Amino acid sequence: MIWEVTTFYLLAFLVAVIAFAFALYLYLWVKKHKVENARIKEVSQLIKEGANTFMAREYKILSVFALVAAAVIFVLLPQPIWMGDVGSNALMAVSYILGTVLSAIAGKIGVMVATLSNGRTAENAKKGIAPAFLMGFRGGAVMGLLVVGCSLLGVAAVLWISGDATILLGFSFGASSLALFAKAGGGIFTKTADVAADLTGKVELGIAEDDPRNPAVIADNVGDNVGDVAGMGADLFDSNVAAMASALVLAGDTKANISMIFCYAILGLLSSVIGIATARIDKKGSPTKALNSSTYVTTAIFLALTALATLVFDNFSWRIWGCAAAGLIVGVVIGLATDFFTDDSKPIVKKCAKASASGPAFTVLSGISYGFLSALPAMIGIALSALISYELGGVFGISMAAVGMLSIVGMIISNDAYGPIVDNARGLAEMGDLGEETIRIADELDSAGNTVKAVTKGFSISAAGLTVISLLSAFMAEANAAFIAAGKTNAILTGFDIMDPYVFFGILVGAVIPAVFSAMLILGVDKNAQRMVKEIHRQFDTIEGLKEGKSKADYATCINIATSGSLRELIPAGLIAIVATLVVGFIGGPKAIGGFLLGNIVSGLLLALFMSNAGGLWDNSKKYVEAGNEGGKGSTAHKAAVIGDTVGDPFKDTAGPSINTQITVVSLVASLCSALFVLLPWIG
Amino acid sequence: MIWEVTTFYLLAFLVAVIAFAFALYLYLWVKKHKVENARIKEVSQLIKEGANTFMAREYKILSVFALVAAAVIFVLLPQPIWMGDVGSNALMAVSYILGTVLSAIAGKIGVMVATLSNGRTAENAKKGIAPAFLMGFRGGAVMGLLVVGCSLLGVAAVLWISGDATILLGFSFGASSLALFAKAGGGIFTKTADVAADLTGKVELGIAEDDPRNPAVIADNVGDNVGDVAGMGADLFDSNVAAMASALVLAGDTKANISMIFCYAILGLLSSVIGIATARIDKKGSPTKALNSSTYVTTAIFLALTALATLVFDNFSWRIWGCAAAGLIVGVVIGLATDFFTDDSKPIVKKCAKASASGPAFTVLSGISYGFLSALPAMIGIALSALISYELGGVFGISMAAVGMLSIVGMIISNDAYGPIVDNARGLAEMGDLGEETIRIADELDSAGNTVKAVTKGFSISAAGLTVISLLSAFMAEANAAFIAAGKTNAILTGFDIMDPYVFFGILVGAVIPAVFSAMLILGVDKNAQRMVKEIHRQFDTIEGLKEGKSKADYATCINIATSGSLRELIPAGLIAIVATLVVGFIGGPKAIGGFLLGNIVSGLLLALFMSNAGGLWDNSKKYVEAGNEGGKGSTAHKAAVIGDTVGDPFKDTAGPSINTQITVVSLVASLCSALFVLLPWIG
Repeated sequence: MIWEVTTFYLLAFLVAVIAFAFALYLYLWVKKHKVENARIKEVSQLIKEGANTFMAREYKILSVFALVAAAVIFVLLPQPIWMGDVGSNALMAVSYILGTVLSAIAGKIGVMVATLSNGRTAENAKKGIAPAFLMGFRGGAVMGLLVVGCSLLGVAAVLWISGDATILLGFSFGASSLALFAKAGGGIFTKTADVAADLTGKVELGIAEDDPRNPAVIADNVGDNVGDVAGMGADLFDSNVAAMASALVLAGDTKANISMIFCYAILGLLSSVIGIATARIDKKGSPTKALNSSTYVTTAIFLALTALATLVFDNFSWRIWGCAAAGLIVGVVIGLATDFFTDDSKPIVKKCAKASASGPAFTVLSGISYGFLSALPAMIGIALSALISYELGGVFGISMAAVGMLSIVGMIISNDAYGPIVDNARGLAEMGDLGEETIRIADELDSAGNTVKAVTKGFSISAAGLTVISLLSAFMAEANAAFIAAGKTNAILTGFDIMDPYVFFGILVGAVIPAVFSAMLILGVDKNAQRMVKEIHRQFDTIEGLKEGKSKADYATCINIATSGSLRELIPAGLIAIVATLVVGFIGGPKAIGGFLLGNIVSGLLLALFMSNAGGLWDNSKKYVEAGNEGGKGSTAHKAAVIGDTVGDPFKDTAGPSINTQITVVSLVASLCSALFVLLPWIG
Repeated sequence: MIWEVTTFYLLAFLVAVIAFAFALYLYLWVKKHKVENARIKEVSQLIKEGANTFMAREYKILSVFALVAAAVIFVLLPQPIWMGDVGSNALMAVSYILGTVLSAIAGKIGVMVATLSNGRTAENAKKGIAPAFLMGFRGGAVMGLLVVGCSLLGVAAVLWISGDATILLGFSFGASSLALFAKAGGGIFTKTADVAADLTGKVELGIAEDDPRNPAVIADNVGDNVGDVAGMGADLFDSNVAAMASALVLAGDTKANISMIFCYAILGLLSSVIGIATARIDKKGSPTKALNSSTYVTTAIFLALTALATLVFDNFSWRIWGCAAAGLIVGVVIGLATDFFTDDSKPIVKKCAKASASGPAFTVLSGISYGFLSALPAMIGIALSALISYELGGVFGISMAAVGMLSIVGMIISNDAYGPIVDNARGLAEMGDLGEETIRIADELDSAGNTVKAVTKGFSISAAGLTVISLLSAFMAEANAAFIAAGKTNAILTGFDIMDPYVFFGILVGAVIPAVFSAMLILGVDKNAQRMVKEIHRQFDTIEGLKEGKSKADYATCINIATSGSLRELIPAGLIAIVATLVVGFIGGPKAIGGFLLGNIVSGLLLALFMSNAGGLWDNSKKYVEAGNEGGKGSTAHKAAVIGDTVGDPFKDTAGPSINTQITVVSLVASLCSALFVLLPWIG
């Protein structure tokens, strides 16, 4: 049997609508539960307002940026407007805007549902772990379904209307440029608050993590939403769109390939829907197991469904199915390896906790070392999956490995968004005085969120790795098309030779960019957190009765500091990567850019894996010590572990996961601007 | 005028002899000064004995390793003995052994002179800063002259006798494999002792850095010698030999090129002799300025002399002179950039110190961030010098940029070895109760040593970078010769395309190796230091009167812990890089190895720069706080700064500088084994 490509477009729309409908059902399910505790109501209202304020101000800045970028795109891309036709430039600009808008909507709604379900999860925790888990998970699933629905809808619509995969790169660039800033801004916000709250509360005053006397506690909870929910959603929306876009560019006009891409995306979304619908735990079950097993169920369903499709459709290739399967399986294996380095039931976390007993320097050194080591299995895994899928399906095969890895992204996001919801719920349970047993349940849910987050991060970094590898091929295809159009046929690229000094130049510069980008983000957190620490000290010094819990802290000022600080830092950090790409391209043309992309991917993957895993390791080591090991709370080991966790916070939640987006943005900028570089007289 | 290559060989021998004679003069000059203080005599005797014990045990292990490696080389390289001729295999094995022996001798004598001059420097500090500076500097210069003399002598002798640059790679591999272990072993030793001494002495007990009550204090001083003097000497011996070897491989049979390489090396050594002979400070002068200005003097003399040589010899090329000049100037600029990030009179150190006032997590985060940022100028500098020298002189030009950068290595080593000598002198001045003013002078000398060390490290990392870039070309040349010999002419390489999945596979694996290697070294320090901290606690708990200074600490046990620990860790860390190269080569052949080398270089440079600079920054931030800023000694900022320094110790003195050697070793293994990979039936 062979179906028309149009059929798959229509199916894509249909399945997107199913995803939206299911999301709506889950939303209404969440909403019909009521919050009774007055204190929880009040605090979750404060969190919601804080998140809305930040996002309103952030989106205001970003809409200016997006409009400027759209104007530049309209003038210059895909070709300067005085050389090409106005129609495609307008289409490119519009699809860019569409990418930013869809990404923003997914983030916005995700935060809305997350701030709705945090209090309800806390309330449900009174009834037991099973209903609380379900509330947290379903809240997160709304976000997961929306993101994947939006990306499938957007990609199908843009390609159907324009019929040109290059225009799709514009859509993808819109998604990823918004993700870059959302991730950076949200990441700085969340860690500013978290770090400052931990250092003043836990370390200096010895009060609990979510003690309402701490003026930064609401900002910390707001941060979970704007950083982890909105930022992460934008990030995975971007990865998913970029993976499909690069596969579609490489598919060219081959109908079978285009059909396969959409078919896989559709089946991935359906598998995620099934996985989400069936996820639950019994009364005694472990939430970590529930989350992981729903990932495995989704994976298995997806592999079975795509195998069936390959059997049914005569123009589908088993080799390409092999590529997607290789990508997905390697993704799961990488997730398991990450788990080994960050799960507190495994030896590494225990070793790091043990090192803490000798002081914070040892905590930091062992975390950094194991973080470096943890990159080994993932890097080898990515290298192997690229090699295998190339052997099976060439460059297009690599892009399908990325599509395969991201097929279950709906499930991944649901698991990921579950984390901040239950983290919030834990805080609300404490602030609402729901009693020890409820807090214990919330704590268990939260700990599962941390473990699963480490796994999903390893997964999404690897997927971004494969995506940008295929974007490298997409870039070469675009550059060569441009060379032909410009009549510089003797400059056509057949590859990027590392012995070529321009390529080599690009590699070295590209490799240092993720380091510089991370440094800017971490310094942003560092500076802002210091500011907030000062403000907290001020409040404790000047507000009478605050320490005793008799008067209220001034939460709004802390939220304000986090907001203004992160908005100030987000633009320069986001721009550095884009500007560096343009500078290298203008100096050395497509050859240097090819090297630049490679250097960027390689060091980006290494640093992202290192930082995410080291951060996860420190976080769980701290939790392990707090559970009574190595002296427990208040011991030397605990103080050292808290310092390790603080160092790890911007690693794992600001810099590490932002690097994904940074390498994707750079790849897309390169592909989009290849035609411009080629026009320069000294190039080619 | 044109001279025969033989004339340059003879000149090389002559100049090496001059260097040795000058070194002997300086040695006798150092020796004729007497140490009068009985306590200093005693302690420096202990340091000397400790260093000798460690080196004897280390060299014993390494000689076994070297003999095994020589046997393997004899059987397999340059071609399996059953295919090639026994003569070249024997020559290769012998030149490998020669490389290890010369490297070991340079290290051994360096430590001998350093342990001789430390006490004398302390004594001289009583008379003022000028004589103390001279003693410290001249002690270090003996090492500098010996290393460069040995490398010039060795390279000239091996090439003259064998007439085959490939055999020279064997000599270079001998030097670098010894350097790898010496650097790793010495680096773990020195930081084990330093970290443990600081944490127990400074942080827990609040006693001074070199307080004789601390049982680890002698081990700390021993470490300065075996880690910084012997290890660093072996490292730069290796870099210098590798740079010349790769240039000579790329020079092929072109007499002009060979002549130029030796001429530049000869003139570099002569310039260093002049620079060393004229270095001194007046009574009021700053030691940092004295050290830096002698570097600039040497650079200027070298550039002038080589320009003169290019003018005089008709077969010398101005373009190649330009390459060497580009390399050298970029090296100096990188040194200055490093200085900006690590000098305590510049803003970055002050910012890091200020962050310390908010606690150790901020110290660590800001150090990591600025460490990342500091890699930017160096990476761009290396990229530019590679680009410029390629445009001027092709691949050979890049190798000459490395030769140019390393031409003044005699001066660089002198500056570098000065550091541990004055560091020891500072300790001895304190232990010998030489009074506050003398300790202050020793402190000033020590601080200059730290600043200059940061600069020389930046310099040597960059030089290693350029060297391995040219080794990449050397590797391709060797692999192609092997393909031709094996009759696999259709597999001949014209480059390494990053779009080739085998190359890409190699890149990803190669990139993760420096991270894994660093992690193993840091974990080695981490584990050993924890062991030593326990031993120190034991001594304070069980030896009566130790805290009050009434009884003696058991120094020998601490030295033993550092020795056995570092010897246990050094072999696996050293082997991982070699084994990974062989595995990748056996799987993917020369193509994958090309990628592997590139990935290794890129991430190696990034991590080496990051770790060296972050470490230097933390060290000087701590010194800045100790000088009375941000609250001074005993303040929160001070405690945080000490933790930062402790994290930085294995960064800057164990892992960071070992990466140089690691990337060189990997490049040489690849070049040497290319013929073997080519023979595999599935390759080509």
